[in-house]
Amino acid sequence: MKKEFDLLAMGELLLRLSPPDNDRLVRCEDFTKQVGGAELNVLSGVSLLGLRAGIISRLPDNEIGYYVRNKIRFNGVSDDYLVYDSSKNARVGLYFYESAAYPRKPHVVYDRANSSFTGIDLSQYDDSLFESARCFHTSGITLALGKQVQNTAIEMIRRFKEAGALISFDVNFRGNLWSGDEARECILKILPYVDIFFCSESTAKLTFLKEGSLYDVMKSFTEEFPISIVASTQRTVHSPRIHTFGSVIYNAADQRYYTEEPYRNIEVVDRIGSGDAYVGGVLYGLLSEPDHIQRALEFGNAASAVKNTVPGDLPSSDRSELLSVIEDHKNKGEILEMSR
Amino acid sequence: MKKEFDLLAMGELLLRLSPPDNDRLVRCEDFTKQVGGAELNVLSGVSLLGLRAGIISRLPDNEIGYYVRNKIRFNGVSDDYLVYDSSKNARVGLYFYESAAYPRKPHVVYDRANSSFTGIDLSQYDDSLFESARCFHTSGITLALGKQVQNTAIEMIRRFKEAGALISFDVNFRGNLWSGDEARECILKILPYVDIFFCSESTAKLTFLKEGSLYDVMKSFTEEFPISIVASTQRTVHSPRIHTFGSVIYNAADQRYYTEEPYRNIEVVDRIGSGDAYVGGVLYGLLSEPDHIQRALEFGNAASAVKNTVPGDLPSSDRSELLSVIEDHKNKGEILEMSR
Amino acid sequence: MKKEFDLLAMGELLLRLSPPDNDRLVRCEDFTKQVGGAELNVLSGVSLLGLRAGIISRLPDNEIGYYVRNKIRFNGVSDDYLVYDSSKNARVGLYFYESAAYPRKPHVVYDRANSSFTGIDLSQYDDSLFESARCFHTSGITLALGKQVQNTAIEMIRRFKEAGALISFDVNFRGNLWSGDEARECILKILPYVDIFFCSESTAKLTFLKEGSLYDVMKSFTEEFPISIVASTQRTVHSPRIHTFGSVIYNAADQRYYTEEPYRNIEVVDRIGSGDAYVGGVLYGLLSEPDHIQRALEFGNAASAVKNTVPGDLPSSDRSELLSVIEDHKNKGEILEMSR
Amino acid sequence: MKKEFDLLAMGELLLRLSPPDNDRLVRCEDFTKQVGGAELNVLSGVSLLGLRAGIISRLPDNEIGYYVRNKIRFNGVSDDYLVYDSSKNARVGLYFYESAAYPRKPHVVYDRANSSFTGIDLSQYDDSLFESARCFHTSGITLALGKQVQNTAIEMIRRFKEAGALISFDVNFRGNLWSGDEARECILKILPYVDIFFCSESTAKLTFLKEGSLYDVMKSFTEEFPISIVASTQRTVHSPRIHTFGSVIYNAADQRYYTEEPYRNIEVVDRIGSGDAYVGGVLYGLLSEPDHIQRALEFGNAASAVKNTVPGDLPSSDRSELLSVIEDHKNKGEILEMSR
Amino acid sequence: MKKEFDLLAMGELLLRLSPPDNDRLVRCEDFTKQVGGAELNVLSGVSLLGLRAGIISRLPDNEIGYYVRNKIRFNGVSDDYLVYDSSKNARVGLYFYESAAYPRKPHVVYDRANSSFTGIDLSQYDDSLFESARCFHTSGITLALGKQVQNTAIEMIRRFKEAGALISFDVNFRGNLWSGDEARECILKILPYVDIFFCSESTAKLTFLKEGSLYDVMKSFTEEFPISIVASTQRTVHSPRIHTFGSVIYNAADQRYYTEEPYRNIEVVDRIGSGDAYVGGVLYGLLSEPDHIQRALEFGNAASAVKNTVPGDLPSSDRSELLSVIEDHKNKGEILEMSR
Amino acid sequence: MKKEFDLLAMGELLLRLSPPDNDRLVRCEDFTKQVGGAELNVLSGVSLLGLRAGIISRLPDNEIGYYVRNKIRFNGVSDDYLVYDSSKNARVGLYFYESAAYPRKPHVVYDRANSSFTGIDLSQYDDSLFESARCFHTSGITLALGKQVQNTAIEMIRRFKEAGALISFDVNFRGNLWSGDEARECILKILPYVDIFFCSESTAKLTFLKEGSLYDVMKSFTEEFPISIVASTQRTVHSPRIHTFGSVIYNAADQRYYTEEPYRNIEVVDRIGSGDAYVGGVLYGLLSEPDHIQRALEFGNAASAVKNTVPGDLPSSDRSELLSVIEDHKNKGEILEMSR
Repeated sequence: MKKEFDLLAMGELLLRLSPPDNDRLVRCEDFTKQVGGAELNVLSGVSLLGLRAGIISRLPDNEIGYYVRNKIRFNGVSDDYLVYDSSKNARVGLYFYESAAYPRKPHVVYDRANSSFTGIDLSQYDDSLFESARCFHTSGITLALGKQVQNTAIEMIRRFKEAGALISFDVNFRGNLWSGDEARECILKILPYVDIFFCSESTAKLTFLKEGSLYDVMKSFTEEFPISIVASTQRTVHSPRIHTFGSVIYNAADQRYYTEEPYRNIEVVDRIGSGDAYVGGVLYGLLSEPDHIQRALEFGNAASAVKNTVPGDLPSSDRSELLSVIEDHKNKGEILEMSR
Repeated sequence: MKKEFDLLAMGELLLRLSPPDNDRLVRCEDFTKQVGGAELNVLSGVSLLGLRAGIISRLPDNEIGYYVRNKIRFNGVSDDYLVYDSSKNARVGLYFYESAAYPRKPHVVYDRANSSFTGIDLSQYDDSLFESARCFHTSGITLALGKQVQNTAIEMIRRFKEAGALISFDVNFRGNLWSGDEARECILKILPYVDIFFCSESTAKLTFLKEGSLYDVMKSFTEEFPISIVASTQRTVHSPRIHTFGSVIYNAADQRYYTEEPYRNIEVVDRIGSGDAYVGGVLYGLLSEPDHIQRALEFGNAASAVKNTVPGDLPSSDRSELLSVIEDHKNKGEILEMSR
Repeated sequence: MKKEFDLLAMGELLLRLSPPDNDRLVRCEDFTKQVGGAELNVLSGVSLLGLRAGIISRLPDNEIGYYVRNKIRFNGVSDDYLVYDSSKNARVGLYFYESAAYPRKPHVVYDRANSSFTGIDLSQYDDSLFESARCFHTSGITLALGKQVQNTAIEMIRRFKEAGALISFDVNFRGNLWSGDEARECILKILPYVDIFFCSESTAKLTFLKEGSLYDVMKSFTEEFPISIVASTQRTVHSPRIHTFGSVIYNAADQRYYTEEPYRNIEVVDRIGSGDAYVGGVLYGLLSEPDHIQRALEFGNAASAVKNTVPGDLPSSDRSELLSVIEDHKNKGEILEMSR
Repeated sequence: MKKEFDLLAMGELLLRLSPPDNDRLVRCEDFTKQVGGAELNVLSGVSLLGLRAGIISRLPDNEIGYYVRNKIRFNGVSDDYLVYDSSKNARVGLYFYESAAYPRKPHVVYDRANSSFTGIDLSQYDDSLFESARCFHTSGITLALGKQVQNTAIEMIRRFKEAGALISFDVNFRGNLWSGDEARECILKILPYVDIFFCSESTAKLTFLKEGSLYDVMKSFTEEFPISIVASTQRTVHSPRIHTFGSVIYNAADQRYYTEEPYRNIEVVDRIGSGDAYVGGVLYGLLSEPDHIQRALEFGNAASAVKNTVPGDLPSSDRSELLSVIEDHKNKGEILEMSR
Repeated sequence: MKKEFDLLAMGELLLRLSPPDNDRLVRCEDFTKQVGGAELNVLSGVSLLGLRAGIISRLPDNEIGYYVRNKIRFNGVSDDYLVYDSSKNARVGLYFYESAAYPRKPHVVYDRANSSFTGIDLSQYDDSLFESARCFHTSGITLALGKQVQNTAIEMIRRFKEAGALISFDVNFRGNLWSGDEARECILKILPYVDIFFCSESTAKLTFLKEGSLYDVMKSFTEEFPISIVASTQRTVHSPRIHTFGSVIYNAADQRYYTEEPYRNIEVVDRIGSGDAYVGGVLYGLLSEPDHIQRALEFGNAASAVKNTVPGDLPSSDRSELLSVIEDHKNKGEILEMSR
Repeated sequence: MKKEFDLLAMGELLLRLSPPDNDRLVRCEDFTKQVGGAELNVLSGVSLLGLRAGIISRLPDNEIGYYVRNKIRFNGVSDDYLVYDSSKNARVGLYFYESAAYPRKPHVVYDRANSSFTGIDLSQYDDSLFESARCFHTSGITLALGKQVQNTAIEMIRRFKEAGALISFDVNFRGNLWSGDEARECILKILPYVDIFFCSESTAKLTFLKEGSLYDVMKSFTEEFPISIVASTQRTVHSPRIHTFGSVIYNAADQRYYTEEPYRNIEVVDRIGSGDAYVGGVLYGLLSEPDHIQRALEFGNAASAVKNTVPGDLPSSDRSELLSVIEDHKNKGEILEMSR
C-alpha cells in the first residue's frame, strides 16, 4: 500500500533575520527574512528532489505564521500537518544571523523561547498521521526544546515506528540548548527505534563518549542498537567563506563504509542549513534507491556542498542540478563553465 | 540647583519590523528595522527640541540590545540609565507593523511578551537617579506590562515626586494589554502624584467613566487630583493616509482651556508615534517656557502633525523645523513652497 | 459526492516586470517581479478565502516556469493541473507595467506572444480532470489567445458542464488582443453553457451591442441564455491613485438586482488584478453560500476595493480581513483606526 | 541653412542626492543619485520631444563628471559642448533634496560653491559654437553663479544673437543665490537681446518692481524691450503632494494672451524640474510650430504637469505621451484608464 | 578620407534579467536589468577607449526598446543605425542569468526567439552606411539567429568589404543556437572576407575540425584564407569566482605569435561579456596603432580581465584604467594598493 | 585626578559615498552613505572597546552636519567638542569610494576642499578642553589640510601636552594632500611633543629619509625625539580582496620590539579605516593596560584585521569580539566555526 508521504518530519519553524550583504546586526537598518528549521530544511531538499514531504509543526495563528506557511508551500513541502496557536502570546521563534569573513566569525543571536511550537501535542493530531508516511525524521534540536516537545517527539517516533515507518534521526547537538549529558540520556532512549542515524565524529565522541576511529565509532552504534545506516559528515572550515565537505556512510547490512572525494574549497555564501541539506540528500537517496548507498552519499554530499552557495536556510537544488554537480565532481577532465 | 536631565522617562524599547513600501507582512521578503517605544518617542522629541533627556529601561546584553542602544544615542537621548539583561532568554520586545491604504487598515502583530524590560527593578538603580531630573514621564503602556514593571514604575513615580520632579503621565490605553477596569484601578493610584496628565476624550469616558463635555471631563481630573495640566488630543482619521489633528490643554492654575485650529488633511506617511510626538512637544513647551501654555500646545500639535509625515516611531524635527511649521500653520496668506 | 476542488480555472500565467516606486520603464535599472493572470488572480482570491482552487495552465520546463509554479503554491492555489513545455523556445508570457499619477496614465507593454500556454491542449489532461471541480472559470482573455487556446477552452467548458460543474465566465474584453466582433462571435458560442457571467456595462454595449439601462442589459443576458447570475462592476477613475468601486448582481432565480454603496475614494496602490479580485470574491460567496447573493456582492466589492491597496496582481486578503472591511464599510459611526 | 542644433543652453550640471522614499536627510543611510540643472532639464525635455539639443557646460575630469556626462547622453542631449576641468579641486556642484508631505515642506541643502562650472570661459569654445544653434537658452540661476559665469553667459547671449539665434531666458529667481536688486540690474542688461522671456508674476513684481495685473505686467516687458514672447506659470501648492498648474503666454506679434484650463490636483511625486519642463515644452512648441502659440502653451503645461509625477529633475515624456495627456486634458468625457 | 566611425557592428541587443547578489532565478523577487549583446559589448569597450563606434540593430518601437537605446547612448555608442519595429509582437530578446559559486555553475535561460532583431533587413538601411566605417564587426551568434539575419549579416560583410572596411569576425560558437556543422558551413563562406578573426582553440578543433597545436591551428586559418590577424583567448575556470585569462595573437604579416603572461586568479564578479571585452580591446589596439600587435594583445587581455570584476555585460574601463592595469600587470615589484 | 575623556582626537569628518555591491562610480544610480575620518575611526574603535572618547571637529550647521553628528553618537563617541559652521558655503568634505576586485584597483575621488573643518580655530574652544583628556591624538592628514587647520592642530598638541596628556600621532602620509618634503618639515616640528608614534616603514624611508632595517628605523625615532612608543603596520595586498596584516611595536622604555604572527589571507570586504582601527586597538591597549605592550599590539592587529571584514570606515568590534579573534588567532588547534 502506497503511503501518502515519503517523508514526514517534526520540528520547529524559525524566522531568520539577517543583515543584508556584509552588514552587522549591531548596525544594519534592514533585515532579510528567511524561513528555516532543521527538519524543514531536510524536507525541502527531499521535496525538490522529487519525493512527497510534509512538516509536522505548530505556528501562531497570525500573519507571521501564515508567511511561514506560505514559504513552506513555495518550497513544495506539504502544510497538511501544521497546527495553529491562537493564544495571546503565540509566536514564531526567531534567530538573528550575521555572516562573516575571516578573521571574523558568523554570529547567531537566538530569540526562540516560548514559541508556539513548544506547545505542540499529540492530541492536536489524528491517528491517521502515523499511517501516512514511509519515513519519519526528527533531530536533537527538537528533543532539546523542552519537556513537552521532547515527549511529543518521542511518542511520534514510537507511533510512526509501530505503523511501519523508517525512523531517521539527526543528533545535531547544540550546546546552547542542552548539555551533552542531557542529550545523551535522552537520545539513548530513542536509538532503539532509529533506522537511519546522522551523527558527526565529534558529537559521537563528546556526547556519546565513544572512542576510537570514526569508522569504529560509526559501526559501534549499529552493534548496540538496531540501526541500519550511520552517516557522518566531515567539514573543514578554512575560513567563513571557504569550506571543504565530505562524509562517510556505514551500512550495517553489508558492513561496508561508503565515501568519496570531498568537495574542496567550496565558495560559501551561506553555510546555514548545509548540514540539513546533507540529511535531505541522503534520505532522498535511501528512500528512492534503497540499495544504492553510494548514490545516497553522493546526493548528500552534493546537496550540502551546493547549499553553501545559496542564501537562506533552505536548499534550492532540484534533481537535475544535483546530478550535474555530481557528474562534474567525478569528472576529472574539462568541465563546461556554464549551463546554458 | 540645576538637574542633569530635563526629562527622564521609563518605558520599554521595542524593535519594529515593517514591510517596505506598501507590502504585506504575509508576503514581504525584507523588513525595515525601527526602534520605538512610547516613552522613548517622547524623549527623542524633547531632545531634538533642545532639552536633555534620558531613558530608563532594560535591554538584552546582546547585539540586538546594542543596536537599540546605538539608535537611542543617534537620536540624542542619553543611555546612562539603561541596564542590561545577560540571562539566557534575554530579548527585545518586537512588533510587526503593516501600514495601509483605504479601505485596508494598518495592522500590528505583537511579539513582546517576556522581554528583558519585564525584569526591570528598582534595585538595578542607584538612589541618585531620582535627583537627576526636573521631570519624570511614563505611560499606561508601561503600567500594563506586568506586575513587576508596574510596581517599579509606581515606585519610581513616588521617588521622583519626593525628589521634587514634575510627574508626567500619558494614559495611552491599549485594550490588548489590559482591561479598562484594570487600567482605571491602577491609574487612580498614581493620579495623586501626577502634575501633567495626557488623556484622550474617549479614554476618559470609556476607562475613567467620565461623562459630559470634553472640557468638563478635563477639568474634573484637576478637581479630583492635584493635577496642573490636562492635555487631550483630537484626531480624525479620514483614511489611513489622511488625518486631521488638534488638541486641547486645560491649565488648572488659570482655569483656562488652550486650543488652536487643527492641522487638517495631514498627509500621513507613518502614524505610529505621532501621539508620543505630541506629548514630547507639549513637555518641551512646559519645561522650557512653563508660563506659556499656548506655546506648549502649538509645539505639541506641530510635533504630532509633522511626525505623521516621517517613517518610523521616532520624531525627527528640531526646533527650527517646528517653528517654521507653526508659523505656516498660523499664516493664512502665501507660504513658501520649499525651504532652500 | 464531494469534488476535490471548489474551483478550477484555465488561463495564462504571466510574469509581470515593474519599475520600483514611481520609476519609469524607459529609465529604471531594476524590475520587481510579480506573477499574475486573470484566472490565477481569481483562484488566489478564492483560495485565500478558504475554498480549494486549482489552475489549469502550461509553463516552460525551466527556472522561470518553476518560479511561477512556486508562487502559485505560495498563494495556496493547487498546481496539480499545470503541464510543462520542454520545447526549445518554451517561455512564460511577460508584461511590463508602469504605474502612474495624475495626469500621467499607467502603461503596459506586452511581450506575451508564443508563450508555452499557447500550446495547451486537451490531450495533455486526463478525463478525470472534468470530474474534479464544482465550478470551472475562464475569461475572454483566454479565448483571445489564439485558435488552439480558444478551442481548448471551449472544449473544457463543454466537458466541465457535462460533468456537472457550474461554468463561470468573465468577458474581460481587451481591445489589444482581439476585436469586438471577434469577441462577440466567439463568446456567443459559449454563453449557452455559462451559469455565472461577469460583464461590464460598457462591454455589454460596445461588444454585445446591447442598449438600454444597465439593469435591462444585465437581465437580457439571462433571458437569451440559461445564465443564472450576471455581475457588472462599476469603477470610477478619479485619478490613477483614487478610484471608486461598486457593482450590481442580477439573480435570474429571484429576478432581483443586488447592490450596495460603492467604496469611495479608494487609495489605489496597484490597480492590476482588482477586477479579478472582484470575480474571486463573488465566486467565493456563490460557492460557499449559494443562496446569499448580497453576501457574494459584498465579498466581491470588498475584495476588489482592498486589492487596489496592495502591490501585485494577486489578492492577499483572507476571510477575516474581508469581513472586517465589509463591517467597516457598513458601519456609519466611529471605526477603529488600526487592527492590533 | 540648417543649423546643427535646434537648441543649445548654458548652465551648471548638478548631482542631486536624495533620501529614498519618505526618509530624511538627517537619518537616511542611502542616497538616490540624480542629475539635473535648470538648463539641462529644459534641453532634455526638448530632446525627448524630437529636437536636437545640446548643453554648454563644464565638468570635472573624473568619474563623477563622466557619470553626469553619461546621464546627459542617456537623455538624448548632446555632450559636444562639454568641457572638462582637470584641476585638483575640480568638482560637480551638489544638492541634497528631501521631499515632504503636509505639513512638512520639501527641503534643499546646497553644496555647489566652487564647482568646475564656475570656471567656464569663452576661451574654452571655438567660434563655430555660435553658428550651430537656432536658439540659445539660459537662466537667471546661471547669471547668479559668480562674475565669471555671468560674464561668459552674457557674452554668449550677445554672440548667439549676432549669429542669428533666438535668445530664450528664464528668470528663475533664487533668493539664496543673489538679491532681487542684483538680479534686476543684471537681467535688465540682457533683456534687449531676449526673444522669449519666462517670468512669473511674483518675480515680475518683487524683482522687476512691476505693478498691475499679470496681463499688464507681461505686456509691459514687450513694450520696454524687443521681446516677442512672455510666458508666466501659475502654480498653486495645495500641499507638497497636490499642486495645480497652468500658465499664460503673451505674444507681442498678435498682442494676444494664450491660456487654457489649468491641470488641477496634480499628484506630485517630485516637483523639482517641473518649471524647467514647462520651459522645455514651450520652446519645443515655438521652435517646431512657431505660429502655433496655443500649441506651445499646451505642450508647456502638459510637460510640467507630467514632470511632477516622475522622480528626478529631468523630464521623461516623449511626444506621444504629451499628446495623449493634452488630449485627455481637453476631453471632458470618458477617458481610458490605462494605455495598453 | 576620414570615415565617420572607426567601428560599426551588427548584432542583437538583449535585455538581461538577473537575481540580485547570490539569489536564484527560481526564488528571487527582483531582477537587475542589464543591456548586452556580443557586438554591443565590443563596441562599448572600443568607445570607452576613445574610438567612434556605432551599433547596427533593430529594436521594438516601445519603452523597452527606448530603454535599450538610452543605455547604448549612456555607454557612448552611437544609435544612428538603430531601426525600430512597430509591429504588434515587437520585442527585445531576453535572457535570465544566474551567477554562481563553486560547486554550483552559472546558469542562463534564454527567451530570445522572435525578437525584433530577427526582422532586420538591408532595405532598412541607406547605402551610405557602408561608407561610414573603417571596420565592420560581427559574430557567429548573429549568423546563428535565423536565415534572415544571417543573410543580412553576410551581405553587410560583403558590402563593407567592398567599401574598403576591415572585416572583423568572432566565431563565438554557441551550441544552443546552431550545430557545429551548420556553423562551419556558414562561417567558411565568410572567411574569404575576414581580416581579423577571433577563434578559440576548442572551437577551431571541434567546429572547424582543425588538428595540431594552437599555434599551428591559428596559422592555418591565415594560410587558407586572406586573414591578417587570428586571435585566440585562453581561459581557465578554477571556479565561478576565480579565472585565469590570457591569449595569443598570430599576425600573418610578420608571421609572429604575440602573447604575454596571463592574468592569474582574476576575482570574477560577472563573467558575462569578458570575451567580448577582449575583442573590443584588441580591435581598439589594431585600429588605433595598427603596427603594434603586442599593444593590441595587452589591451585585449587587460580589458577582458577587468571586465570580469564588474557587473553587467558591458565593459566600463576607459583608456587610463586599462593603461594602469597593464602597467601593474607588467610590474613585478611593489604596486600601489589604491588609486586616489 | 580622573580626566573626563580617555582620548580626544582632532580631525576632519567626511561623508563617504559608495556604489552598492561591486558597482562603479561612473554607472551606479545609488550611493551608500558612510561617515568616516582618520581620527574618528580611531576614536570609534577606542570607544567600542570601553574607553571614553570624543572628537574635536567642525561641521556645517545643516542636516548633513547633523547626520554626521548623529552617526558619531551612534558609534559611542562624544560630540561635546563639535563646533558648527553657519556660513553660507558651510559643507562636509566628501569622498567617493569604489571598491574593487583583482585586477582592478579600489578608487577614490575626493571632494573635500573648503569644508567647514578647514575653518576650525582654537578660539572656538574653551581652555578647559585641554584638561579633559588623558591622551590627544591626531594625524598627518589633519596637518595637511591647510595652514589654519595645521596651526590649530599644532597648538592643540602643545596645549594638551602642557596639560599633561599623552600625545599620539599617526603619520598617515597622503601624497595627494601634500608632498613628502612638506610633510617631513611639518611633522619634525611636532615630534618633540609626541609620545606614541605610528609610522609605516615605507613612510619612514620615503618621507623621513630613514635608512636601514625597519627595527633600526623605529628605534631611531625614539633616539632623536622623546617618543616612548613607535608602531609600524605591515600590510601585504595579495589582491583587493585578500590581505595579510601584522605590525611591530618598539617600546623605548624596555628597548624591546613586540610582534606576533600576522593575520594571513584576511577576507577583505572594505579596507578603508583598517589602518585607523589598528591605531585604535593599540591606543586602547596602551591606555587601559600601559605596561602590557604585547596586549596593545594584539588588540591593534585584531582590530585592524577584523575591520577589513566590515563595510564602512568605522570599526564595529567590541572587546568581547576582539578577545575572541585574538584567542582564535593564537589557537593552533580546532576552532568553533560559529559563535551562537
